[in-house]
Amino acid sequence: MQKEMWPAGTLLSPVPPALVSCGEGEEANIITIGWTGIINSKPPMTYISVRPERHSYKIIEKTGEFVINLAPASICRAVDLCGVVSGKDGDKFKRSGLTPQKSNKVSCPQIAECPVSLECKVTDKIDLGSHTMFMARIECVNVGKEFVDEKGKLNTEKMDLTAYVHGAYYSLGKSLGTFGFSVKKKKKR
Amino acid sequence: MQKEMWPAGTLLSPVPPALVSCGEGEEANIITIGWTGIINSKPPMTYISVRPERHSYKIIEKTGEFVINLAPASICRAVDLCGVVSGKDGDKFKRSGLTPQKSNKVSCPQIAECPVSLECKVTDKIDLGSHTMFMARIECVNVGKEFVDEKGKLNTEKMDLTAYVHGAYYSLGKSLGTFGFSVKKKKKR
Repeated sequence: MQKEMWPAGTLLSPVPPALVSCGEGEEANIITIGWTGIINSKPPMTYISVRPERHSYKIIEKTGEFVINLAPASICRAVDLCGVVSGKDGDKFKRSGLTPQKSNKVSCPQIAECPVSLECKVTDKIDLGSHTMFMARIECVNVGKEFVDEKGKLNTEKMDLTAYVHGAYYSLGKSLGTFGFSVKKKKKR
Repeated sequence: MQKEMWPAGTLLSPVPPALVSCGEGEEANIITIGWTGIINSKPPMTYISVRPERHSYKIIEKTGEFVINLAPASICRAVDLCGVVSGKDGDKFKRSGLTPQKSNKVSCPQIAECPVSLECKVTDKIDLGSHTMFMARIECVNVGKEFVDEKGKLNTEKMDLTAYVHGAYYSLGKSLGTFGFSVKKKKKR
């Protein structure tokens, strides 16, 4: 297709609008972060890039811990709110209506309404300009029991996860195939 | 919700199943990569994490360049194929039916069928275990002319981008709102 050249920008999509929880007790906070991804499989590692002026920045820097919570479409308003208001101005759990839930390997809470929560411990911190990248080990994963079938398989489709594309939130649409479908041999009858 | 604790894993979703093009001429190759994201806004920076045993790894290491191409749902079969077969076994452009198109700031081709292509130059390389993370500056962005309206605004919805969730490809579904909708005041009539 014919294309036009634009200046450099952050137009990578879709990304997860992740609800990142951090801090303990009174200090617990939530920040919505699109600048996240997997950086290594073995051991499982992730990152979040955070502006130093954000309220959560100092909390994560101090504690070295956070939880990445994946957001179902049903809580999209809370996802958006936790990205635009600051924890400096009051308790974001209360304001968003989200519920803190005890984590297993880190001191900060996970979010009860989220079907997947990745507990993370920071391993490295790199200042890149507008953002600082916190690299982290994923210590364990919490999954909603209602999404695990009797064989122990996870039904991610049922989770109705949210995608973020260039300033807009979307639900996921129809399934297009599973990994490897393009080379799968058809079963003989 | 009630959750159960699972061992650490790479369950962050949705991620972009990005078609990463690299290399020049005969050596040009495509690799599908889910381990990508934005790591900095100013300047715009991204990363891709690649296993050293992949054919594209040496190409990117040598040239220090790659292009991240976003995939519409219509080419999902090619996206899957470029993730499961190796460039060692033949020209992946030919095999996938995708078309190389000249880039502006890097020597490797972008992919003509993709509505967004981010031209990238590697700034750093970090070995993390199974994967090596290539951090990169985004040098420019190419967008399909058919997705730019008369006001110069980009219509990402029309692009019909693909999302990757835990081993499955999805189209994007319905719009849930735009950034800031949770705090927007209703317009007075």
